[in-house]
Amino acid sequence: MAPTDYQHEYFNVTFPSEYVAHVEINRPKKLNAFVSAMWEGLGAIFRKMSYDPDIRVIVISGAGDRAFSAGLDVQAAATEGPLAGSENQNLDQARKAAALRRHIFEFQDDITAVEKCTKPVIAVLHGVAYGLAIDLSSACDIRFCAKNTRFSVKEVDIGIAADIGTLTRLPKANVPMSFIKEVALTAREFTPAEALQFGFVSGVFETKDDALAKALQTAALIASKSPVAVQSTKDVINFSRDHSVSDGLNYVAQVNSAMFFTKDVEDSMTAGLQKRKPKFAKL
Amino acid sequence: MAPTDYQHEYFNVTFPSEYVAHVEINRPKKLNAFVSAMWEGLGAIFRKMSYDPDIRVIVISGAGDRAFSAGLDVQAAATEGPLAGSENQNLDQARKAAALRRHIFEFQDDITAVEKCTKPVIAVLHGVAYGLAIDLSSACDIRFCAKNTRFSVKEVDIGIAADIGTLTRLPKANVPMSFIKEVALTAREFTPAEALQFGFVSGVFETKDDALAKALQTAALIASKSPVAVQSTKDVINFSRDHSVSDGLNYVAQVNSAMFFTKDVEDSMTAGLQKRKPKFAKL
Amino acid sequence: MAPTDYQHEYFNVTFPSEYVAHVEINRPKKLNAFVSAMWEGLGAIFRKMSYDPDIRVIVISGAGDRAFSAGLDVQAAATEGPLAGSENQNLDQARKAAALRRHIFEFQDDITAVEKCTKPVIAVLHGVAYGLAIDLSSACDIRFCAKNTRFSVKEVDIGIAADIGTLTRLPKANVPMSFIKEVALTAREFTPAEALQFGFVSGVFETKDDALAKALQTAALIASKSPVAVQSTKDVINFSRDHSVSDGLNYVAQVNSAMFFTKDVEDSMTAGLQKRKPKFAKL
Amino acid sequence: MAPTDYQHEYFNVTFPSEYVAHVEINRPKKLNAFVSAMWEGLGAIFRKMSYDPDIRVIVISGAGDRAFSAGLDVQAAATEGPLAGSENQNLDQARKAAALRRHIFEFQDDITAVEKCTKPVIAVLHGVAYGLAIDLSSACDIRFCAKNTRFSVKEVDIGIAADIGTLTRLPKANVPMSFIKEVALTAREFTPAEALQFGFVSGVFETKDDALAKALQTAALIASKSPVAVQSTKDVINFSRDHSVSDGLNYVAQVNSAMFFTKDVEDSMTAGLQKRKPKFAKL
Amino acid sequence: MAPTDYQHEYFNVTFPSEYVAHVEINRPKKLNAFVSAMWEGLGAIFRKMSYDPDIRVIVISGAGDRAFSAGLDVQAAATEGPLAGSENQNLDQARKAAALRRHIFEFQDDITAVEKCTKPVIAVLHGVAYGLAIDLSSACDIRFCAKNTRFSVKEVDIGIAADIGTLTRLPKANVPMSFIKEVALTAREFTPAEALQFGFVSGVFETKDDALAKALQTAALIASKSPVAVQSTKDVINFSRDHSVSDGLNYVAQVNSAMFFTKDVEDSMTAGLQKRKPKFAKL
Amino acid sequence: MAPTDYQHEYFNVTFPSEYVAHVEINRPKKLNAFVSAMWEGLGAIFRKMSYDPDIRVIVISGAGDRAFSAGLDVQAAATEGPLAGSENQNLDQARKAAALRRHIFEFQDDITAVEKCTKPVIAVLHGVAYGLAIDLSSACDIRFCAKNTRFSVKEVDIGIAADIGTLTRLPKANVPMSFIKEVALTAREFTPAEALQFGFVSGVFETKDDALAKALQTAALIASKSPVAVQSTKDVINFSRDHSVSDGLNYVAQVNSAMFFTKDVEDSMTAGLQKRKPKFAKL
Repeated sequence: MAPTDYQHEYFNVTFPSEYVAHVEINRPKKLNAFVSAMWEGLGAIFRKMSYDPDIRVIVISGAGDRAFSAGLDVQAAATEGPLAGSENQNLDQARKAAALRRHIFEFQDDITAVEKCTKPVIAVLHGVAYGLAIDLSSACDIRFCAKNTRFSVKEVDIGIAADIGTLTRLPKANVPMSFIKEVALTAREFTPAEALQFGFVSGVFETKDDALAKALQTAALIASKSPVAVQSTKDVINFSRDHSVSDGLNYVAQVNSAMFFTKDVEDSMTAGLQKRKPKFAKL
Repeated sequence: MAPTDYQHEYFNVTFPSEYVAHVEINRPKKLNAFVSAMWEGLGAIFRKMSYDPDIRVIVISGAGDRAFSAGLDVQAAATEGPLAGSENQNLDQARKAAALRRHIFEFQDDITAVEKCTKPVIAVLHGVAYGLAIDLSSACDIRFCAKNTRFSVKEVDIGIAADIGTLTRLPKANVPMSFIKEVALTAREFTPAEALQFGFVSGVFETKDDALAKALQTAALIASKSPVAVQSTKDVINFSRDHSVSDGLNYVAQVNSAMFFTKDVEDSMTAGLQKRKPKFAKL
Repeated sequence: MAPTDYQHEYFNVTFPSEYVAHVEINRPKKLNAFVSAMWEGLGAIFRKMSYDPDIRVIVISGAGDRAFSAGLDVQAAATEGPLAGSENQNLDQARKAAALRRHIFEFQDDITAVEKCTKPVIAVLHGVAYGLAIDLSSACDIRFCAKNTRFSVKEVDIGIAADIGTLTRLPKANVPMSFIKEVALTAREFTPAEALQFGFVSGVFETKDDALAKALQTAALIASKSPVAVQSTKDVINFSRDHSVSDGLNYVAQVNSAMFFTKDVEDSMTAGLQKRKPKFAKL
Repeated sequence: MAPTDYQHEYFNVTFPSEYVAHVEINRPKKLNAFVSAMWEGLGAIFRKMSYDPDIRVIVISGAGDRAFSAGLDVQAAATEGPLAGSENQNLDQARKAAALRRHIFEFQDDITAVEKCTKPVIAVLHGVAYGLAIDLSSACDIRFCAKNTRFSVKEVDIGIAADIGTLTRLPKANVPMSFIKEVALTAREFTPAEALQFGFVSGVFETKDDALAKALQTAALIASKSPVAVQSTKDVINFSRDHSVSDGLNYVAQVNSAMFFTKDVEDSMTAGLQKRKPKFAKL
Repeated sequence: MAPTDYQHEYFNVTFPSEYVAHVEINRPKKLNAFVSAMWEGLGAIFRKMSYDPDIRVIVISGAGDRAFSAGLDVQAAATEGPLAGSENQNLDQARKAAALRRHIFEFQDDITAVEKCTKPVIAVLHGVAYGLAIDLSSACDIRFCAKNTRFSVKEVDIGIAADIGTLTRLPKANVPMSFIKEVALTAREFTPAEALQFGFVSGVFETKDDALAKALQTAALIASKSPVAVQSTKDVINFSRDHSVSDGLNYVAQVNSAMFFTKDVEDSMTAGLQKRKPKFAKL
Repeated sequence: MAPTDYQHEYFNVTFPSEYVAHVEINRPKKLNAFVSAMWEGLGAIFRKMSYDPDIRVIVISGAGDRAFSAGLDVQAAATEGPLAGSENQNLDQARKAAALRRHIFEFQDDITAVEKCTKPVIAVLHGVAYGLAIDLSSACDIRFCAKNTRFSVKEVDIGIAADIGTLTRLPKANVPMSFIKEVALTAREFTPAEALQFGFVSGVFETKDDALAKALQTAALIASKSPVAVQSTKDVINFSRDHSVSDGLNYVAQVNSAMFFTKDVEDSMTAGLQKRKPKFAKL
């Protein structure tokens, strides 16, 4: 597909190298804070990219110098949509709750589209990274950040538990629980150094540009590998996260009993021996 | 409630700031080693605090300079109670095992009361922190320690596997398994630096007083947030630890469909905009 | 048993100290790369050691200076056995897949024998540690390495997802997911410093000899403890990894209701008081 | 919404009584065998009905005298779509497998839409009910049938394991495993008497019309109850099916802590005392 | 203990034969409908009986001719306690929900005390058995009934999903799902014949007296067996219900490695050979 | 393979029709009671048959008129092997427990070999079917019986909980729990009519010969189907039993993405159209 297939008011989508897509959250004047059209757009983009054979890896970052994202646009949320509640004000409490629950499910689904995307997704964090920024990047596979990043699980500061994935995915990202609880219960900012020490990110870079450059380079490296191998690897790691070791071993055997029979194996080996870059068919 | 409601031979309970309780293990002459009256008392205190609307965060530490706790008072255990075995000596082996199992369950329940407490619990470790000290602090949400802390999963040194929670909760605290097994199989002491590096604690401080001060300050910060948000956050993180991401997302949606409808949201937002401290109703 | 009981073409088995076995992968000319006879042999050795009362701890390392193991001997795999496919070439695709799946299961079982071994296993990594080297060491309990170790989850470079345990066990080893995915999706080498920082190993040593010395010393320390306590500890940690905290607590209570009734408890305590080394009966 | 909102080439949708929708599979000349447009249509209809406040219960049946459904239209599947394979014939085997897997996921999702529909769904089976007919009715909540129904888990007769839900949902429908395996492994027809005896259906009726009449009457009865109570009941039973009792109890407490606060409780009680039919607000 | 130890306003506790306790719900004028003092009393009785060595089996039934229990005393619930809501009327909605959730947990715990009781519990149902009667009997191990029993999962008729265990335990009781959903969604009465056909009860008897006689005879039979074997059997079946077969096999091996070493095995075998009734020590 | 490959002192193995093996427990003078050589033999036979391409279905029955099997040969168990305990009498209690646990695991593994066998297994029960007979048949896929069968979960009568699979597999066989507990806690005999009513067997026949004839005919029918489809079906049903519906759907998609690509699909369809019996390649 072409970049134009992914045109969106709030996202810049470019293809900086072969098989690599770059999705940029684009509402810099508002610190890339999310309104509902944004998470719906994000979900749509990642669902489409999941089966786009021209894309093998995706990098996501925020436009502008100031923020990856300030999270939910609280002002907008307070005046429109289910959180505003105006449309539901005549409902009894159970019906209000049901409407809200449906809203949360739909919101979650749009962010989960990043995790379910069959291609690896690399988040590049910088500047303000509050609330939904953590939910979103937790759904990515790899997280890099710039030294100026200001992380915060911000939700308790607006009186709610984070419900779009942070509280669920951080414990599964193997970030130590004492640290997770400290930052989630206080809503305090944490630093890139802490994020690295406790494993939330696996790389900290001097500037946003450095972090992005590293992400694009990593993406290009992954994109040069067999897409069969890459997509199976993401799938099996995510499955294993949620199942016992015994279930995980069975799963990878089932996956590979189908996925082993690919020309990519032969091509990978030959290319390895010949020290040249293999070419893999689209997937 | 008043501090007097929590009077106990082996625990000092104070309220250093609004909504913050401080529980001090108080048997310093014996390095705060635990006899059965102590874990029963601990369980009782935390069960009561769990629903005490005047408490929002709890800090637990050990009295005296020398130890958070030396763990189980082995001498006492050897002469009284189920481990002593005198009362069970006429039983056949299965009945002895059943009596012991019941004892373990009751013992575990008293420590699990800390985890099940609806309020966040911060452990401040210092000096000797052996055996049961690890079981107990593993059940807390956040762990800080002083530089003089001497940690040890001590149980193999008395011929048994740790059965009050350490072996179960450390792997779920996202401490790396190679380190967990190294210290649990050797019973060797490990240092605050290791504890921080491998994420068992999320902060190391120069002295016990510094660590305690930090804990109380963190507690006060958490206590200043919406208790609805705080308690939901603890609940959802603990649930997520034991379930798949998909289950965790569903769970937080169910929780928030009830918990969103609180004046705390409005109060939090308004206070945030007005840069003042909100007041939340009791919970 | 005697070392001769474990004689194997591809493994040197020695007993450097009481109750400690040292298994050395011995195909140094080929960088200790694995052919099928090797993983079958490895599985057989660990199944036997699991119930050998003369062994309480096992150290595994690679012979020679250059490699712990370069992983699967791809050349051998390509010319013999199920991966070669020659014997299956007349089968339809489903039957080929079934034959491969059976092969993967058998291969996995041989590596899983290390995890299922009732005794703790310490891996000493050095030099090249690629592909199967990660699968194998992930199944060990404790991992140490030398500073010259070159780690790589190499499988995507041959066009497949790692299917012998790496992708399943790394997330359960509490290594942060961002790092796991970065190295598994890129197949890039990672350093001992990274391995330590992200908790894959719990110790890095100047040379292979230093790492091995530390491993043997740790093994001797564990071997000096009650084997009842040690084996229960390994069992309970592994169980807890795959179950909820509530299930883990119940499990350890069941295990200890049988395992508490051992002379080792009394011997451990007496020896502790008398500051001498206890002697424990075989298990 | 109006019936016209659900117009579909292959489905008749009517509203036989208040809040009750009747979805009729409408391809009687082909024994209601499914082509891909049909399962896509089915999925779309149930996703829409799931949040249509004018619908509280759904009945699904097959048009004509001869069949609920003969299952997959094998002839059509062999000439078009992913099973035909023509479009994929140049792919290597792994890519064919990936394409097929995606197709299976999408197919499953359309049938799972019936299970995920927040409203109860009652299946009325009659005549031929083969293959996909079992997958589909297994995703329904209640199953009734006519005496002339000829059930068969037919898939092994076309050389594959049933993959759209039958093999997964029957064991969870609490149908005895010996019977499930007997009919799934032989593909033999089973009778309404067997279906009732082993609990696959909960009612057998003389004719299709009788079965449909009973289903519509049951639907009307359910539609007369509080939709809050009804939808929560379906949700909690389905959750409980897949989780431990302890998890199920926690879940229903979370659900009801939001759903209890409905005017329906008061209205139900008052109406019960006054022996009149309550009116509930839309949900 | 003596019957007087279990005196309670709402329960008659007798000991009709050795080691058999009979708990009779005793509020016949109100069809044995439950007020909060009753479930609290029930929980207390079963917690105490769980470790009373003089009790090996418990039978539970309802006093009077008309009802096992009509369920929750809705009138009482509407005027006192958390459901009445008067005490909570000044709370915001989240705090009301939290208070209700706590109430549900406590209520559930009292009924779950029946399931967690280490001794088998046999329910004898007759006459009206509505709502809470189903929750309670679902927590029992064996269910018998009289021919005049009128069963109903009544909760949707008061506008809520059953939240004290019915919806969670019925699917785990291996009652076919189509039947469970039919009766839970319609709240219709079902008959003893249906209850037997779908396995909710395992015996139907002509009268209440016949059913009770059969239950007491069954209880006496179980009470004549080794209490070690009996209690382990209940424990393992309940564990297996909530875990995989593989987990269940491991669990029973752990349990029996402790519980096999009982004089009961020898006594059982000898008595079996000598065709006399063995005597087992208390447990 | 030939029948001679399966010669065993205690088992008659014959091949009554193409691809059908018949394993007869052959110790009729002792009512086919099991000594350790028998379960070891049974395990060995089924492990071998699991990958024998000449076998597609297995029928298991007991030799002689009187018994399928009287279960464990208690007399033999009391005088030899781990249960006798003579070899372990000098061990402390924990070591005795560890030895017993290892014995139970090995015993379980031999019976589990029946469940893990990739081919469907049909049990034909008749006469005495006590204790281990239930463990063994619970591990089979389909159970038929003769009218003279006398079933009993006999273990509590020898003072222990059934530990070779009965208590774990019956709840997963979807037999109603009230019935399971009634028969497991009382050790009473239950009848073929009860076994059918509660779904433990799916067919009762006049005589042992009738039951066997029906089993062989069912086996021949299954053997005539695609072995790819048949083995996948068994695998997926067993997986689904132990996992959520969502996990089961994912699993079958993974399995079929490999297993769909078989000539059996085309052959099955063509044969179906031509009303002739297809021939499938070995698997």
